[in-house]
Formats: sequence, C-alpha cells, structure tokens
Amino acid sequence: MAAAAPPPPPTAAPVTLPESDPSGNTLFTRIRLATVDDVPHIHKLIHEMAVFERLTHLFEATSESLANTLFPQNPPPPFTSFTVFLLELSYMPFPPAPQNENFTPILKSIHLDLPIEDPEREMFRSKAIDVNVLGNDVIVGGFVLFFPNYSSFLAKPGFYIEDIFVRECYRRKGLGKILLSAVVLQAAKMGYGRVEWVVLDWNVNAIKFYEQMGAQILPEWRICRLTGDALQAYAHINI
Amino acid sequence: MAAAAPPPPPTAAPVTLPESDPSGNTLFTRIRLATVDDVPHIHKLIHEMAVFERLTHLFEATSESLANTLFPQNPPPPFTSFTVFLLELSYMPFPPAPQNENFTPILKSIHLDLPIEDPEREMFRSKAIDVNVLGNDVIVGGFVLFFPNYSSFLAKPGFYIEDIFVRECYRRKGLGKILLSAVVLQAAKMGYGRVEWVVLDWNVNAIKFYEQMGAQILPEWRICRLTGDALQAYAHINI
Repeated sequence: MAAAAPPPPPTAAPVTLPESDPSGNTLFTRIRLATVDDVPHIHKLIHEMAVFERLTHLFEATSESLANTLFPQNPPPPFTSFTVFLLELSYMPFPPAPQNENFTPILKSIHLDLPIEDPEREMFRSKAIDVNVLGNDVIVGGFVLFFPNYSSFLAKPGFYIEDIFVRECYRRKGLGKILLSAVVLQAAKMGYGRVEWVVLDWNVNAIKFYEQMGAQILPEWRICRLTGDALQAYAHINI
Repeated sequence: MAAAAPPPPPTAAPVTLPESDPSGNTLFTRIRLATVDDVPHIHKLIHEMAVFERLTHLFEATSESLANTLFPQNPPPPFTSFTVFLLELSYMPFPPAPQNENFTPILKSIHLDLPIEDPEREMFRSKAIDVNVLGNDVIVGGFVLFFPNYSSFLAKPGFYIEDIFVRECYRRKGLGKILLSAVVLQAAKMGYGRVEWVVLDWNVNAIKFYEQMGAQILPEWRICRLTGDALQAYAHINI
C-alpha cells in the first residue's frame, strides 16, 4: 500500500560503504586520556575492581578524593604523574582522532560473534564531548591507571601500571591487551626503559599471557607495604 | 678488690656535654635532599649497589643520564617525581638544619664502639655547600631513591622506594633505618597512604626487620616487567 511504502531508494549515485557494521558484530574501541568529567565512571570502575578482587573492605575512594588526587587544580605535564586511559566502546565508528598535543586517541575495532549484552549500559555512557555532540552511543568498558617509575640502573623512567580493568561483560575479547598496549606504546614513544605491573602468583592464565607478550615474571621479589596505623606509628616513633 | 672497683661517680658540678665526641665514637648523620651537584656521588653509589647485587650487566647509568632524569631543567615540585635523599656522615656535628621550604634536613647521631675505617673516604666527600664552607669532614654514606605511587582503593598517593643503599663499611649500624624512616616520615607529613618497596624472598633478615617495623610482606604478588627489545617489539606490533 502506498502509505506503507518505504521511502524511495537514493538516487543512482555511487554508494559509499557504511563505516559501521549493521550486524552489530563489530565493536569499535577507543583509548583516550580521562578527564575530571570521567571521575564518576572511574569511581564505579575501581569499585567493580574491588568487588572482583574481593577487597571491598579496602575500598575507601570517593569521587571527590579521586578527582582531587587524579585531576589536581594545577595539573602536572601529561604522563609525569598519575594517568588514566579510558577504554570506550561503540557499535558505531568513532570520529577521526583529533591530533592532540598530549595524546592522540587510539582507534581500533574487534570482531564479535554476537553483540554483547551490557546490563550496566546506561550507567557507563561516556562523558566524552565529541561523541555526545554526534549522538553516538558510546560506553565506557574499562580503564588503566599508571604513573612513572624509575630505574636507577638504566637512569630512565618507566611506567608502572597500578590497575588494569575491563568490565565483566566485555572480558576475554582482547580489550585488556588493547589497554596494556596503549601504555607500552606510550612508554616506547617517550623513550622509557620499562613497563612494570604485578600479578597474583596463582593467576596462571594471566602469567602465561604476560610471558607470551615478552614480559619477565620476577620470581624472587616480594612487595613490602607499610600503611595505615603502622605507617603513622613508625613515622612518629623513629624520627 | 680495689683495682676492680668501678670508676668514681661523676662530680656534682653540672657538666655541659661537648657537641662533638673527641673519642670519635659518635657518628653524626644528616639526611638531606640531593641536588645536581651530588650526581657523581649518586652515580658511584648506584654502581656499588649493582656490584653488591651482582647486576653490573644491567648497569647503564652515566652521570649525564642521571642528571638529566633526576634533576631536569624544569624541576617538578619537590616529592612529586623522582627524589633522592642523601645520607651524610661526620664525626663533627652538622650545622643546625636551616628551615627549607622543600625539606628540612634530619639530624641524628649514633654511638659506635670503634670509629669506622672508610677506604673510599676521599671519593665520597660531600658536595654540600654549608659543610664545605665550615670545613667539616663530611662523607656520603648512602642514599634512598623514591617517587610517588598511587592507590586507587585509597584514592591517595604513596611513596615507592626504588633503591635504599648504605656503603659497605657503614652497614649494620642502623643507617638503613634512618634512610627508610625519613621516607616514611615524609609520607606521613604529606598525608600519603602507604610506603612500598620490594625485598628478595631469601633475604630473611631483611624480611624480619621489615615485619618488625610493621610492614606487610605480600606473599602472592609477582612483579611483571617488560623491557628492552621486548618492550619495543610489543609496542610496535600491537598498535
């Protein structure tokens, strides 16, 4: 019936292939520097990480304390202090990455067998200005938090990765590797000597993955941590 | 028997204790922030540490590369990046510590049974301006290199101690503890959440000492390190 007829096809002009994949089986990814606007998402991600690690009794961060410490009012130059990369996900392509003097976002895509059901989709809608303007449906899927460390033998800085986290429904698709690679590439670009992080000794899958990427697992070193009341007591008794 | 009698008690007149100890059995210690003038000493200390750890094959630092990375031309605010405290030693008291907006030197003293023979005395004569003006005989005995790290659960920075080193002839006298305490006190002053470092798992004496000071030794975590050619390869293949 005429009333129900579809709109006429576009004219015969050459067709440009759509950049997005209508089947929804291509997931576009973007790594970008987080800003203070992302703090509510970062706070939720860190909390989900604490739940995953069964360490919620150690979780004291608030959005305010994260904002104050990760995004201070007089920020140091990029990558010289605590740094967060966010992993954003979309079934539509991202706009071309603008050349940014601090960090040019890294765009990739991965193939999925099926679109992913994300039960927290609404809660993790990206705050990025550029994708909001375009009305894109962009979701925050994970993050990596890292900062400079230093090797005195090399006389070079490196990066230490404190946290790397991908939300549960997006795991086992190579997204953790995309986050890790972004830090390694940044280290290489800056001429840094090494990238370090820690792993639990019983996490054999993670250890295998890290060894395959060329990392050494240092078997003999143990972390010593002085914190809380013990730190306060030691500081004030011994000086 | 008379010959074995204890010495007579001190006379009743109030005695002012001399500031220095002519017997040479009091070693005065000072912890101060290192400057670029100390780089040749820092370089020698790091090299001695590499020899002690049997890791000279990993030692690549030069005075120039240390100066460029530890004391850049536009230095960040104190304690926000790589920081070196030097341990200075003298058999004469140090001048009173000037109030310094960055760090007020920490003065202490320890009792020795015998003065210490230092075969490298000439090589480690301090470059500090104040003690040189006074003609004091001040020797660099060790150092600690540390920098901020971050706990996302606490939403607070901490300090990570990369190196702590006391020259061989000055060991087993509590000087390492003086260096460690200085970092812990600085962390407490800044409201930081923790101080961390690593120890070799077979170094049972060190582990016992750290546990006695209230530190936890984290048994399950292993350090992962990506460095050298593996870092370059991973960065360029994966992005």
